[in-house]
Order: sequence, then C-alpha cells, then structure tokens
Amino acid sequence: MTTIGVGLIGTGYMGKCHALAWNAVRPVFGDGPRPRLVHLAEVTADLAARRADEFGFERSTDDWRVLIADPEVEVVSVTTPNAFHAEMAIAALAAGKHVWCEKPMAVALADAERMAAAARASGRVTALGYNYIQNPVIRHIRTLIGEGAIGEVNHVRFEMDEDFMADPAAPFYWKSEASSGYGALDDFGVHPLSLIQFLFGGISRVMAQLCMPYADRPGGDGGRRRVETWDIASVLLELTNGASGVMALNRSAWGRKGRIAMQVFGSRGTIAYDQERMNEFQLYAVEGRASEHGFRTVLTAPVHEPYDRFIPAPGHGLGFNELKIIECHELLRAIRGEAAQIVGFDKGLEIERAVHAMARSHHAGRWVEV
Amino acid sequence: MTTIGVGLIGTGYMGKCHALAWNAVRPVFGDGPRPRLVHLAEVTADLAARRADEFGFERSTDDWRVLIADPEVEVVSVTTPNAFHAEMAIAALAAGKHVWCEKPMAVALADAERMAAAARASGRVTALGYNYIQNPVIRHIRTLIGEGAIGEVNHVRFEMDEDFMADPAAPFYWKSEASSGYGALDDFGVHPLSLIQFLFGGISRVMAQLCMPYADRPGGDGGRRRVETWDIASVLLELTNGASGVMALNRSAWGRKGRIAMQVFGSRGTIAYDQERMNEFQLYAVEGRASEHGFRTVLTAPVHEPYDRFIPAPGHGLGFNELKIIECHELLRAIRGEAAQIVGFDKGLEIERAVHAMARSHHAGRWVEV
Amino acid sequence: MTTIGVGLIGTGYMGKCHALAWNAVRPVFGDGPRPRLVHLAEVTADLAARRADEFGFERSTDDWRVLIADPEVEVVSVTTPNAFHAEMAIAALAAGKHVWCEKPMAVALADAERMAAAARASGRVTALGYNYIQNPVIRHIRTLIGEGAIGEVNHVRFEMDEDFMADPAAPFYWKSEASSGYGALDDFGVHPLSLIQFLFGGISRVMAQLCMPYADRPGGDGGRRRVETWDIASVLLELTNGASGVMALNRSAWGRKGRIAMQVFGSRGTIAYDQERMNEFQLYAVEGRASEHGFRTVLTAPVHEPYDRFIPAPGHGLGFNELKIIECHELLRAIRGEAAQIVGFDKGLEIERAVHAMARSHHAGRWVEV
Amino acid sequence: MTTIGVGLIGTGYMGKCHALAWNAVRPVFGDGPRPRLVHLAEVTADLAARRADEFGFERSTDDWRVLIADPEVEVVSVTTPNAFHAEMAIAALAAGKHVWCEKPMAVALADAERMAAAARASGRVTALGYNYIQNPVIRHIRTLIGEGAIGEVNHVRFEMDEDFMADPAAPFYWKSEASSGYGALDDFGVHPLSLIQFLFGGISRVMAQLCMPYADRPGGDGGRRRVETWDIASVLLELTNGASGVMALNRSAWGRKGRIAMQVFGSRGTIAYDQERMNEFQLYAVEGRASEHGFRTVLTAPVHEPYDRFIPAPGHGLGFNELKIIECHELLRAIRGEAAQIVGFDKGLEIERAVHAMARSHHAGRWVEV
Repeated sequence: MTTIGVGLIGTGYMGKCHALAWNAVRPVFGDGPRPRLVHLAEVTADLAARRADEFGFERSTDDWRVLIADPEVEVVSVTTPNAFHAEMAIAALAAGKHVWCEKPMAVALADAERMAAAARASGRVTALGYNYIQNPVIRHIRTLIGEGAIGEVNHVRFEMDEDFMADPAAPFYWKSEASSGYGALDDFGVHPLSLIQFLFGGISRVMAQLCMPYADRPGGDGGRRRVETWDIASVLLELTNGASGVMALNRSAWGRKGRIAMQVFGSRGTIAYDQERMNEFQLYAVEGRASEHGFRTVLTAPVHEPYDRFIPAPGHGLGFNELKIIECHELLRAIRGEAAQIVGFDKGLEIERAVHAMARSHHAGRWVEV
Repeated sequence: MTTIGVGLIGTGYMGKCHALAWNAVRPVFGDGPRPRLVHLAEVTADLAARRADEFGFERSTDDWRVLIADPEVEVVSVTTPNAFHAEMAIAALAAGKHVWCEKPMAVALADAERMAAAARASGRVTALGYNYIQNPVIRHIRTLIGEGAIGEVNHVRFEMDEDFMADPAAPFYWKSEASSGYGALDDFGVHPLSLIQFLFGGISRVMAQLCMPYADRPGGDGGRRRVETWDIASVLLELTNGASGVMALNRSAWGRKGRIAMQVFGSRGTIAYDQERMNEFQLYAVEGRASEHGFRTVLTAPVHEPYDRFIPAPGHGLGFNELKIIECHELLRAIRGEAAQIVGFDKGLEIERAVHAMARSHHAGRWVEV
Repeated sequence: MTTIGVGLIGTGYMGKCHALAWNAVRPVFGDGPRPRLVHLAEVTADLAARRADEFGFERSTDDWRVLIADPEVEVVSVTTPNAFHAEMAIAALAAGKHVWCEKPMAVALADAERMAAAARASGRVTALGYNYIQNPVIRHIRTLIGEGAIGEVNHVRFEMDEDFMADPAAPFYWKSEASSGYGALDDFGVHPLSLIQFLFGGISRVMAQLCMPYADRPGGDGGRRRVETWDIASVLLELTNGASGVMALNRSAWGRKGRIAMQVFGSRGTIAYDQERMNEFQLYAVEGRASEHGFRTVLTAPVHEPYDRFIPAPGHGLGFNELKIIECHELLRAIRGEAAQIVGFDKGLEIERAVHAMARSHHAGRWVEV
Repeated sequence: MTTIGVGLIGTGYMGKCHALAWNAVRPVFGDGPRPRLVHLAEVTADLAARRADEFGFERSTDDWRVLIADPEVEVVSVTTPNAFHAEMAIAALAAGKHVWCEKPMAVALADAERMAAAARASGRVTALGYNYIQNPVIRHIRTLIGEGAIGEVNHVRFEMDEDFMADPAAPFYWKSEASSGYGALDDFGVHPLSLIQFLFGGISRVMAQLCMPYADRPGGDGGRRRVETWDIASVLLELTNGASGVMALNRSAWGRKGRIAMQVFGSRGTIAYDQERMNEFQLYAVEGRASEHGFRTVLTAPVHEPYDRFIPAPGHGLGFNELKIIECHELLRAIRGEAAQIVGFDKGLEIERAVHAMARSHHAGRWVEV
C-alpha cells in the first residue's frame, strides 16, 4: 500500500483539523502510505468545492453518500455535527471504508451501540477523535505510571473547563437544547474519560451532580428560553483498578479556555498536567533527600515520542493541531495492521456508557454501576 | 481594659503559634489591651516551666485546672489534642474565661454541641482556630465577591491536600485510629468548610466518598495493622446560596504540603487561590476587550487589610504564623465588643454538622441534608 | 498566480520545518498560490530522493545548483549550515528566484553584506527564518505597544537560554570552533534581536561581555581541546527609541530548553513573555483600582491573528512549527506584493551588524556604536 | 547573660520590623538572652511615647543621644533614614553598644568607611539589615551550591524590580534627589549584592549603565523638576570566583512589587529563585534519566533551617517580617560569640564599594575594578 484514498465529510473546526492532519502526516512521519486526498463533502456544492481547493482534495460533493460510494476513497473522516455521526459512520463501514469519526460517538447510547456493532461486523478500522491521548506528554505519563514511577495509583482528579457558555447574556442556542445531550457531561466529559481509559482502564461506579448555572437565556424573540442542558457536572468515580476519583466539568468557567487538568496520586508520587500548558507536566517522585523534593516541570522533548518527528530540540512545543497529526498516524498504523493507540468504536462505546451512567446517577441521586 | 490576662494550655504546633500571636498582636496592631502572659500549662511541670520561660509567661503548671482557676487569666488558649477540647473549653467558659480553641472543635458531634451550648450559656467570647479566613487575600476575595466582581457565584471547587500520610511504609499511628475521627474529612475538611462558611454561608446537602489508599500499615510489633480512617475524601456539595460545589481532600497526596486550592466561578468572572502561595490570588473579570482577558495574579498589598499593619510595601509577603496574629486581634476585638471575623463555637458547630453529614452520606451512598 | 514552484535545499531541523510549512500553508490559510513542491536538494542523491518522497517533492538532486537552475522553481528555501547561506542565496537571487533563508544570514559580516546587496539588486523577495516574530502572541504584543497599552517603553530585558552546550563532559564539536562564529552571540542573539527589531526598531549602542563557562572540552583523541567560542553573552543596550536594555544569552544554561524571555517596561505597564510557554503572555496595565492590579496571563485566542486560521477556539495552543507556517504565508504575501511581516536581507543585515558590534565591544571593553 | 537591653531608634517601616523581631525572637527560638525592650527614640516625644507603648518599650525619648547614653541599653537598632546611619551607629559603638543598622550603610562611601573603622575599633558586634540572606530558602541554596549540587557556578543573573517610582505623574520627592544617592543602584542594588556576597563571595569588576526613565517630574509648585537619580541600572559583573554575571535593577518596573529574581547556572544544574514567592525555589539538577528532567519547585520545609523554629509542617510559608526575626537571632548569636550569618560593617563596606564602583563605571563608560 503506497497511497491511501481519503474522504472528508465536514470542514468546520474538526474538519479542517483532519484536513491539516491528512496533509501533514506523511511529511512529519515519513512512513506509511501517502494520503491521497480524493473526495470532500460539504453541505453545499460551492462550499465543498472551495474547501476542496483549499485543502487540496481532488473532487467535492454536496452529497456525502456520493463520497462514501467513491471507490477511490478508502478511509473517511466524519467531522459533522454529532447527530450525523452514526448514520455516516455506519454507511461508510458498510461500504468497506475505514472510519475516523470525531467525538462524541453519538448523542443517544443506542446509536453508539449501533456504531460499535457496525464496526465489529465490518472488520474495518475505526478511530474516534480523542486527540488528547496522543500528546507525547500524556503518552509519557502513561509510560511513567506503567513503570511504577509514582507507585500504585490510588486517586485521580480530572477537571475540564472552558468558558464558551459562561456569559448569561449570550443567546440560547443548540447547546442548551436537550437534543444536544446532557451538556458538559457529554460535551466535555468524554475527553477526561478518554484520558482515564487510556491511562487507567475502566470505570466501575459513578455518582454525578449536574447543575445549571443559568436557568434560562435570551431567546430569539426578545423573551427568555428555558435552558435544558447542564453546563456544570461533578462526578465521583470508582475505577476498575480500585482507585477513586473526581471529575469536575464546567463549560461556564470564565477564564478557562482549554483547561483539562489532571492530578494522579500514587503511593510513591504524584503527576499533574494541564492541557492549557500542553507541552509540560509536573512530576513529584519520592526519591533523593527530602530537602530537594518538589514537583518537577518537565518540558516536552524528543525523548517523549513522537515529539522528535516534529522537532529535534526540546522545549519548543507542539500545538493542538499536531495532536491530530499523531492521531492520524496512529490510524494509519492500525490500518496497516500495526499496534496503534486509537480509541476504536468498541472502546468509544465504553466511554459513552460511562457518560450515560453518570446522567442516570444524577437523576437517581445515588451511585450507578457503569 | 488596658491589659488582658492570657492562659495557654498546650505548647505544641498550635500552642507555639498562639504564644507567638499573643506576643506579637500588640506591637503589630498597636491597639487594644496589652496581653499579659500569665499562666501556661503543659503535661509536666518541667516542660511547662521551660515553655513559660521561652514564650514569656509569668507562671506555669502541669494542671490545666489550676490555670483555669487563676483569677488573673481572662482568656484561655486551648491547643491540646482534639479529644481534650470539649472538657477544657467548657471548664474555662464555666470559670468565666473567654476561650480561643484550636480546630476541630471535637471528635464527637455531641461534644461540639455541648461546647456550643456552654458558649451560649456563658456569654463569653469563643473563637476557633480557623486562621485561613484571616488571610488578607481571603478577606479581599470576600469583599470582591460581595461587590459582585465576579457576578453571582454558581460553582465552587475546594481542594485540600498534604502528604504526611502518603508513605505506605510509615508505621500506624493514632491518625489511622477510628478514635481520631473520620480521617481527611475532619482533619482537613473543616478548613475548606471554614472558607466556604466565611465566603458563601452554609451548606444544604452533601454526598461524600471516603477512601483508604492503604488498607493497613506496619504495626509496632512487626505485623500489619488495619487502617480505620479515610485519608481521601471527595464530596459533592449544594450550598444554601444555590451554588454547587466539589470538595476534594487528600492527606496522602505526595508533593502537596499545604495546598488549599479553591476556584470560585461566577457569572462575570472567576477567582482562584492556593494556600501554598498564600500571598497571591488569581482574578479573571470580564471587562475590557477580549484580546487582553486573562487571569490576573494579584499580590498582597497594604490595600488588602490588615496587611498594612505588618508591612507598608506590597508584594513582600505574610507568613502562616501571621494569620494567627490577625486571628488573635479579631478575638480581642470581639472581647472588646467590636465587630470581628471569628468562628465562634456556634458557627464552628455548623462546620462540625457538615462533616458528620458527609460521613453519613458516604455510608448511606446517597445525598444527606446538613 | 495560482501555483508557485518551490525548491528546498537542506532537510535537517529547519529543512523539515520548511517542508512542513510548504505543505500546510495553503490548507491553513486557504488563500494565495498553491505551493507546488518541485525540487529538493540534499548532499547525496539517495537522501535527496528519500526526503523528496517523504515531503512530497516531485524531483530531487544532490546538486543544489541544479535545483536553482530549475525553471519551475520560483522560490528557494535555503536551510543548509550557515556557512553555505551566502553562496546559495546569492546564486538563487541571481537566477531570479525568491529566497527564504534560515537565520543567521552568514558567519562573516561581509557575506551578509553581499547577500543584502544581491537582494537589492535582484528585486526579488527575501525572507530570513526569524519565526518567533510570527507568533500571534508577539504580534499582539506589538499591537499593544503601538496602541500605548503600557505607555512609552523605557526599558527592555531579553534572555535566551538553552542547555545543549551545558554539559562540560560533552565532546568538542563544531559549535566550539571559531569558524562557527562567536558562540551564543550569533547562535542565539539574533533571535532576541529580531524581536527587538520587530517590536522597537533599531539599536544604537552596545556593550557586551562574552564568557566561556568551560575553557576546554574532550577532544576526539582522548585529550582536551581548547574552546574557541563564548557560550554565554551579556549585553547592555541602547535602543534608537531611547530605551535601555539588557540581553543575556546562555547556551550552557542547564534546564532551559527553548527559553526566550522578555520583559518590556513602559510608563503605564509591563509586558512579559517566555517562549517556553509560547501560547501566553503577561500584561500588567495600570487601570482600575489598585487592589486588583496584577499581571494577567493572557492565553492565545482567535482574536490574536492569525491564530484563528489554525484553531477557532481559544487556549488550545499553537506549536513551534506552526510559526513557520505563518512565516511562509507572510513570504507568499510579500511575493504577491502585499504588506508582510518578514525580515528581508536588508533588515537581517541590521541584526548582523548589531551582533558584530557586540563582539567588538567585548574586545574593546567599552561601548560600541552599531 | 540572661537578658539583653535593647534600644530602638526610628519606628518607620524598618523600625517596626525591628520591634517585631525583638518581641518575637525569644518565643520563636527559645534560646539566648531575653531581649529587654529598654528605650525607644523618635523625632517627637509624643510619637516616641506612643510607639514605646505599642512596641512594649519601657521608656522613650526624642533625643537619640539619650538612648545611646542609657547604660541599660546594650544593643541599638538604627532604623532612621540613611543619612543618619553613620552618625548614630558610630556614636552607639563609641558608647560600647552593639549595633544593628539598616541598609544601606550610608550614602557617601566615606561614611561607610568611617562606620567600618568604628566597628573594628569598638570590638562590638555590628549587623546590617540584609534580611534576604536569612531566608531558609537562600540558606539552603547556599548549602546546595557548597555541596556541588549544581556543579561549579559559572554564571549568575540577578534582577530586583519594584514599581514605587513607576508612575511618571507622581510628584518629585527625595528619592529623585542626588543627595539620596544614585537611585536604583544603592536603593536596590545592595540587596542582590548581599545575596551575591552570601552565596559566592566578592565581585572583581563591574560595568554599569544607569538610566532615567523620566527626565523630570511634577514639582511642588505646579512646574516640573529635573530628576537627579537613576531609577534603572543594568550591570555586567565579574565575580572573584571567576563566574560572570548580570544585575538588572528597576524601581520603575510596573507590576513588580518585591521581585528579587536570581538564576544561578552551574556545570551540573541551575537554581532559580524569586523573592515574590519567597517560600520556594527552583532546582534543576542533572540526575536520573533525561525524560524526567525538569525544574523542581521546592517548597520551604522544616528541613530548611531555621524554618522549623517557626512551623513544624512544610509548605506553610514564612513571611518577610520573619526574616528579620532570624536576622535578630543571628545578631544575638554573634553577640554571644557564636558563629552567625550576619553582614557586619566590614562586609557591608565591600557592598558599598561595589556600588560606588558601578557608578564610576557608568560615568567612565568602561569596566571598573571594585
């Protein structure tokens, strides 16, 4: 396999991110098949043509089914709004394509289950866009934990906070509609959950509290419209490895822009990380004499793979978009049958199940098994 | 009243801290009665005499009842182990003394209730050692919240972490015994709870998860002894003001030494603080144009009262011990009948009630009203 | 002009960085000519062919003169060792190509002067690889300074520190040879000087101190070899705008990986920045009441152009390589005759002159005019 | 010696700081003679009496010579404006008193020389108020350097910045008068110089640049008055141990409140410190594998002496005023004939000589030997 035909559905935030990754993956890594950018789909033919020109795709369409039917397309990036993921991904799998789908899998758990079933049935590779696990820093943290650098992990804390819902004067829009999901829980929670899965494995029990900081918002008609989703979610966790945890989410957190903060406590040390400073992590390891104990700020370096594929010098920093390039490379590795670090639809479904269990625990006011 | 006679029971960590405060309060503030250091009690006559000499007390005793009976003692500092607080404080109040008692009030809720009742009956001033609320930074944060600087508060997060229980190889000692209390919940939780009370008022509902990172520890006899307290506690909160919250406590958190981190989210901004950097706080206020929005690191300054009583220049920093001097001054203000920021036994009892409600919620696996 | 033919000479650290930029610039910005990757040159035909395949170039050669003679090549990236810059750049200009040359221009000032003369004579666009000025954060800082956000700038401090020369046990290599230049002064100094030029304009007087932390290093033969370059340089500055400054450079600074720290002091505020956290800057502006004054940590956001071309959400972070994409886009703008922020050979020569004046001031032990 | 009689001249910023230290030193350290607060002098009898009452002194006077003549006074704190230091200190020494004098010694070098001569002739103990060297963090850094934790020190950088002269609209006052000294150089420079002396020994050569950010300021009469001192000073240094250095001072640095930042570069590591976060330091030591190398943030702990005399728990933090208590304790140790870490008049004179050499180098535009 020297080339691989790529189709891209959707060219918004994540669509562009996929396009950049497809363009960069081969120059960065220098291995694997060369992506051939075959087909791009958008909602109008004009927009599709314009984006195809910008992103370097050969042809474009306003009908995603045409793209999926294109025999030269071997892998499909699905980056449309969440409500469309299931239909598109299942269709692509049915057409024998590999699928790279943005997170979350779907709004309804039943849809996620259908996607996972379709993936299993197809024998094709699926990958969800949980790009934070691709950060060389996060990968190295997993290595450290696996080596026992901080002993046995007994407690974890995850926070994810942004402020795009923080302004009470901002008008009601679809993120406040019940049809979009629970709110912070699925909009945000899946990211920390992907990190928990990557670093520690599964979750056994959850107990959540969902909150609405603003009960209503300005409607389009000069009146007020009642908010139907929860912008804040706080969750108590029990992991399958026996550790306890807390996950706190807030998409109304003024001043937080891309915060995904984690603290991992072990019997021999502690690791801390914040996505807003994604090129460093904090390590406290109990070694040497006490008078020099302290959290070490470790900067990303070539020794933290695959940082070296981007930059040969330490401390120069990767960007958010470059995580997507690594994710793309992992997808290609999986397609070639190599071991790869991706969240397939099967593992994605576990994340969805945790989210829905959390919602149930909120309404029940008690612990729920995942 | 030009002088006030002081008695001090106990000279350990907090006992010395009280002694330093009694020596410093008048030179720092330059007002109020001059403390006359009259009587000091310790477990042996020899130790009592030595500490009296060091701390500048006129006389000493190995019988705290003698101290309480001393007619020249007008206010008594109780800094002994928690199990003794109730008996000593109640006796002192009965003898007509004002009482400055270290936190927590007592191990058993019934004892705390008896203390509050005794305080009410006595008409004397009581103050508990919740010194973190005395930090000029915390006081200023309260002012900011009261002014609406961050709008209406809708969510809070508190963490308190230290690592003195983090080493699994450390031998079993009394902090792992059930007789000492629940563990992190009362050992630590009362501090964030004092801040919550000071900044926001009361708590209405709680849901806690208590965890033991280490099931047993080395006993004195070469064997292992089963741990009876929970070093980790995570709590979901509902405040009486309608805000939701999370409180996460860990006294096995390697690398954390005196961390009391809080995040306060409001409709117009966010405030963050960490006791390990107690001379600064972070403020994000939505004002001015977006391109310069960011968390401001505000350093303590004379404008943050009563920092100016210690140092006339900003950014030079107060120490932990100096919070106790401010607390001592507030106590003296209360004794003089002036408005003062202290946690009396009545308000301390509310904190105890919250702690015990948390423990009940853990065992019940559901929300508990405070 | 719908496409532009690109030639790349050299594929090391910066060569790959150029290749990534040429691949990404059109998908990211969506405007300008589409780069057509025509020709790549390396030292051996085999390496050249391999890299051409990886980076997506149509053809390759082991003779850079062949690349320059290629009529389909319209712009040439020169990323070879510094000693080759002058010869290659001048040849490319003579062949009518635009030139994108890595920094520093040349080792000898005479070579830099010849390059500038060639650029002027050619009428072609030249750009030097001073990518740090392309950071949206740095651009926004320039905007702020221009708007008077911190008043009149009266003092600046720049530090650039890395640790690749910090190990005294590391063997002697070419960076310790006099033929490589002065050491930190040209290896590092040109970066802060590019920032000074971009933000403030020129430098009028300098006074430098050059230091060798290690007089000799292990030679290849088991003996020691005398070091001929200065790994540390400290410089007092007078800027043409009247401000004073300090520039401190150290390529033997253990623990510093990519630090370029700057502090800009003005009559109304202060701005601070550190390249190791390249997605944020610190702003202290004198406004509002004093009790909330503090340095604001401003995270990069779409409002800081052209961050929005990469990511529509704030606080997600660009990487070092992405600065090169912006630089590439500026180069293309200049080629199209639009206003662009690049350091052409004329402005690059000013930087070189400052470096050489610093070296002279060190030897003379007195101030030197630039 | 069970008590020591104390006299205090001046009760401003530093005078109060001395008074607090005299009150606290015995309760904190529990050893040495008990200070007996005998006599206090201020400019008016009324103010003297009031401060004596507040600070706990037995008697007071408006004539400092009366205080010095008091036979019960054994040690005199001189905390008056700099211009009075020489006269008072010399008189006190002549009267057989030990002298604790605030920094800087004097405005004129000749006065400092007379003070040092008087100290030598008297056989009494003298100590200057260089309290920053008393920080347990700084002491521990000295220990680390002495142990070779960062190898051989080859380069240092010191910055001291505050903003009390930063506002150009602030009226002219005595700090802008030539009679007050050079400006930042003596006002600030002596503090970093005391740290350099404490940590590394002496300075051999200096080259300074002095700058006036504002040429004139509002006078009292509605007009403008020409500024005569330099608020900014930047200095290149050569230390007697062979290391090079930079010292940058700015008392017009908006946003800096008590910044004394130092970076110490060695052949095996780096240490960094900032007085604005005086309870921590940064250590980068080359040990262990590279993938976990990073600057460690070490929080003050009981193991960093004499922190344990204040607080038995780590990470709780000392304040600026508490450095003065340690300084007072060192003075008492010296008086008892024990080894002590103080800057006597002899070592203070070295600091003054460095300052004056810097001023000469500025005017000469070349290096000056100290």
